[in-house]
Amino acid sequence: MLVLWNGQLLPRTEVQVDLEDRAYQFGDGVYEVIRVYGGQLFLLNPHLDRLVRSARAIRLDLPWSPSQLANQLRELVAANRLVDGAVYLQVSRGVAPRAHAFPRASQPVLVAYPLPASRPTEAQERGVRATFVEDIRWLRCDIKSLNLLANVLAKETAVERGAQEAILHRGETVTEGSASNVFIVQGRVLRTHPANHLILDGITRRFVLDLAAREGISTVEAPFTREDLLNADEAFFTSTTQEIVPIVEVDGHSIGVGVPGPITRKLLRAFHAAVQATIQQEV
Amino acid sequence: MLVLWNGQLLPRTEVQVDLEDRAYQFGDGVYEVIRVYGGQLFLLNPHLDRLVRSARAIRLDLPWSPSQLANQLRELVAANRLVDGAVYLQVSRGVAPRAHAFPRASQPVLVAYPLPASRPTEAQERGVRATFVEDIRWLRCDIKSLNLLANVLAKETAVERGAQEAILHRGETVTEGSASNVFIVQGRVLRTHPANHLILDGITRRFVLDLAAREGISTVEAPFTREDLLNADEAFFTSTTQEIVPIVEVDGHSIGVGVPGPITRKLLRAFHAAVQATIQQEV
Repeated sequence: MLVLWNGQLLPRTEVQVDLEDRAYQFGDGVYEVIRVYGGQLFLLNPHLDRLVRSARAIRLDLPWSPSQLANQLRELVAANRLVDGAVYLQVSRGVAPRAHAFPRASQPVLVAYPLPASRPTEAQERGVRATFVEDIRWLRCDIKSLNLLANVLAKETAVERGAQEAILHRGETVTEGSASNVFIVQGRVLRTHPANHLILDGITRRFVLDLAAREGISTVEAPFTREDLLNADEAFFTSTTQEIVPIVEVDGHSIGVGVPGPITRKLLRAFHAAVQATIQQEV
Repeated sequence: MLVLWNGQLLPRTEVQVDLEDRAYQFGDGVYEVIRVYGGQLFLLNPHLDRLVRSARAIRLDLPWSPSQLANQLRELVAANRLVDGAVYLQVSRGVAPRAHAFPRASQPVLVAYPLPASRPTEAQERGVRATFVEDIRWLRCDIKSLNLLANVLAKETAVERGAQEAILHRGETVTEGSASNVFIVQGRVLRTHPANHLILDGITRRFVLDLAAREGISTVEAPFTREDLLNADEAFFTSTTQEIVPIVEVDGHSIGVGVPGPITRKLLRAFHAAVQATIQQEV
């Protein structure tokens, strides 16, 4: 495997992270995961735009423009002959003697490499179980940062409960999943938490809202409660690697009639069509 | 410099962190900073006990007992001929292909190395300025984890405002500093935020509470507001590397009469005496 390391493509074994890299000691950095379909980086520009926003939010100056990053990522995909998978990209504030305040002279450290990813076909057809976990994260969840311990602990709790995903709630309000956004269908309306400081505005979240609009489905970005979710007609989560996955059960309660509902399936068909269009697109 | 790396002492340049170390991608780990005076690790056991508690809180199984860790840290100090300084110690959940949930088989990665530290004599004599910054951290601040981005941003804000430390407040309640605990003196009573999930229970915080009791100073662990702090007779912060530092001004408001007060100075003398006793202790 070749890894993109500060602009160079290196064999995985030659990449050496410094122990005083601020990502290692403070989680002081930001990241993206970008899906690759048919050798194409899916929704690349929105991902890079969000990386720029995340970096700006933690006041990390990126020395690369989005178009430079796009070119480097395309080279990474080509060099690894990556057809179907994902690319993980992270930027830290750099290497400096340990101190909380920003170092006066550090160069950001960029690493990107391929991650395996395959379409969760069975989960999309049958739906999955989820579980409620209290949302104890910080108040800047809109930043896609490397401070992911709360997400890690929530996901692990889900796995231990035999669930696919943790649905986070702050008080009674459902915010998002541990690594996804959560949608519910109430009657003919698709609803998801607004993109404020309490959630990460997922690229797939935004894409699904757009798909819904094109499919004539009404959408509302407004908070909803755990009870709203349990009483919803349908529910699903979205993420870059999972696309759209129906939620059919939460902590033993069936959602709707306990199988993926018609609006979720309609959105899945539209999503798959968009992926097919990407795959067939000329390089 | 020699670095303790999973039980071995290695030259700094030979330590190579893997890019899929979970500390690098998730901040999935815990740490301690331990002060060294006269070649002695100060308050070592409380630090190691807290490391064990932090690890347990994130369900990371430490493969080393506190006494094994103590021995390894003493070897590190000796090998580096460290007399006055500090030791940084971090443990991550280990290296594994990137996924939020815990890896089924990963070995924790331990790194420890010397940090420079000297007594902030001038700051202790004259006192320092601090500034209020909103506390936006997660709700498990009692865990000394590697998710430090909120602390980093708060400290940077303080530096940019010409202050030594950021005093975090959640709503009107003062919690702690960005890398310290905060105390106020009201009349003859020393007051600090209780050790719950909203603050890190500093080893120096606990030590100072004990010193105060021995010096006949009443202590109360109870929340206080920003206004209480501004109206306090004295204020100071505590940390492993800074010991006790008087706060004489917050955002342009003098604390007390704007110089270090008698109770703060009494505690500083007692603290210095304890350090002297450590330095004179037999190895």
